[in-house]
Amino acid sequence: MRNFFKLFNALELKNKHLCIGLDPDPDKFPDVVKECGNVPKAILYFNKAIVDKTKDLVCAYKPNFAFYEKHGEYGIEVLGKTIVYINQVAPNVPVILDYKRGDIGNTNAGSVALAKRLGADAITIAPYMGKVANQPFLDEKDMGIFVLVRTSNEGSDEFQGLKLENGNYLYQQVIKNVLTTWNENENCAVVIGATAPIELADARTTYPKATILIPGTGEQGGSLEKALDAGFNSNGGGIILNQSRSILYASKGIDFADAARAEAEKVNEKILAFKEKKFSKTAV
Amino acid sequence: MRNFFKLFNALELKNKHLCIGLDPDPDKFPDVVKECGNVPKAILYFNKAIVDKTKDLVCAYKPNFAFYEKHGEYGIEVLGKTIVYINQVAPNVPVILDYKRGDIGNTNAGSVALAKRLGADAITIAPYMGKVANQPFLDEKDMGIFVLVRTSNEGSDEFQGLKLENGNYLYQQVIKNVLTTWNENENCAVVIGATAPIELADARTTYPKATILIPGTGEQGGSLEKALDAGFNSNGGGIILNQSRSILYASKGIDFADAARAEAEKVNEKILAFKEKKFSKTAV
Repeated sequence: MRNFFKLFNALELKNKHLCIGLDPDPDKFPDVVKECGNVPKAILYFNKAIVDKTKDLVCAYKPNFAFYEKHGEYGIEVLGKTIVYINQVAPNVPVILDYKRGDIGNTNAGSVALAKRLGADAITIAPYMGKVANQPFLDEKDMGIFVLVRTSNEGSDEFQGLKLENGNYLYQQVIKNVLTTWNENENCAVVIGATAPIELADARTTYPKATILIPGTGEQGGSLEKALDAGFNSNGGGIILNQSRSILYASKGIDFADAARAEAEKVNEKILAFKEKKFSKTAV
Repeated sequence: MRNFFKLFNALELKNKHLCIGLDPDPDKFPDVVKECGNVPKAILYFNKAIVDKTKDLVCAYKPNFAFYEKHGEYGIEVLGKTIVYINQVAPNVPVILDYKRGDIGNTNAGSVALAKRLGADAITIAPYMGKVANQPFLDEKDMGIFVLVRTSNEGSDEFQGLKLENGNYLYQQVIKNVLTTWNENENCAVVIGATAPIELADARTTYPKATILIPGTGEQGGSLEKALDAGFNSNGGGIILNQSRSILYASKGIDFADAARAEAEKVNEKILAFKEKKFSKTAV
């Protein structure tokens, strides 16, 4: 198995921080895609077109399992074919399966098996059941294990923002455990939404070297500038900025893949401009 | 769509509290099942045999998605066929899809779509992302929504047992929110493992009418007696006792389905004896 962090770090060195969430929604597909056959065929056609046009711009792709399982067994088949295609045309780009799994140990073993079979280099998991339950994921030394810490959705503070008796907020306790006791194989990373820039900055200050996956700067409305400011440092802390809908559905015309590329380029330019400004200032 | 609680309540009135977790593990299959063809065929054969022999003994079946997704698209297909079969031969027995989903709202919509397509009457979900994110599940008025509160695995107290500044433990806050603000459609229930009998008793005292799904009394080692004592009351609080491995793999011989039935009958006898003892005492 390939090592997720080796792949990601090589691309990050080339200033690539954009991850495209491959979350296909057939209702939003351009007519040219809808017309290409049944839904599974349309999804594969759409994904391939997006990958072809963006593969030199990204540090990862992140298909979310739920957008595929929606179509039952045919959806899972298309998810597998999508990852095979990425591996074929962009062998240097890792795939993060947005999986959000979390069950008892012997059950998680089943989820690990599928993630490996599908060719995922990394997965997302949920923390609620604790380390012991998640051990089958953590045991995958070459797999990046992204644990939900502070999610990007409205209302994510209902539990994540609860204050504990020990003075920490729950999300702080989760990140602490994940990056210490869970991280024996140095394969853990965290998910913190751009919609929580204060929590993101706090996490980055406390864990300067952690790799952070940041959703929420696209359609969900989190500020890209604030996320970059909170997340970037010069200590080697990795940043993966995910955008899905804002890139995938940038145009509903026949030019949809070119429009996706243009949108991805725009994000990359903003990231690069920000880094140049921030780190040239630091250097002075 | 059928209403989960109507189906469950009708069976509960007949003293049925046992739920069989249909978690097929081909490595543990009897030779007679292994020999019947490829893995998907073997799983379907196994599930059908278990259902045929136990359908008059249970209040629900609970297939765990991860045991099917392990086999990719073929596994999902077999999961669907298993539920169709249950609906056909035991139309009065509801199916709880052990799904443990929890993502942002538009993503959860995809998971709901599959659960409905597969024919699930109820699902399990994870609480960490909060109510707003889980709304697509909560909006399914006829579906039973079982939220993880205190899970049965070793180490489940890592986060669930954390004490909050407000004096509650995290699991108490989760159950409180789920059974109040989340429960606008009166379709919420909770999962509390038998391995946490004190927490189970606490939850039952505080929420006398809640329906509680209790895993962990079989292979996982939680005491059935303690779980019954903590969970049962005479105020109409529903109890669903799940066992999987201890029933499914009671024998590795050609008599595996009969052995599963015998094991299920044993559990039912214990439940009945317990209820008679407890409630006759109460009546005096």
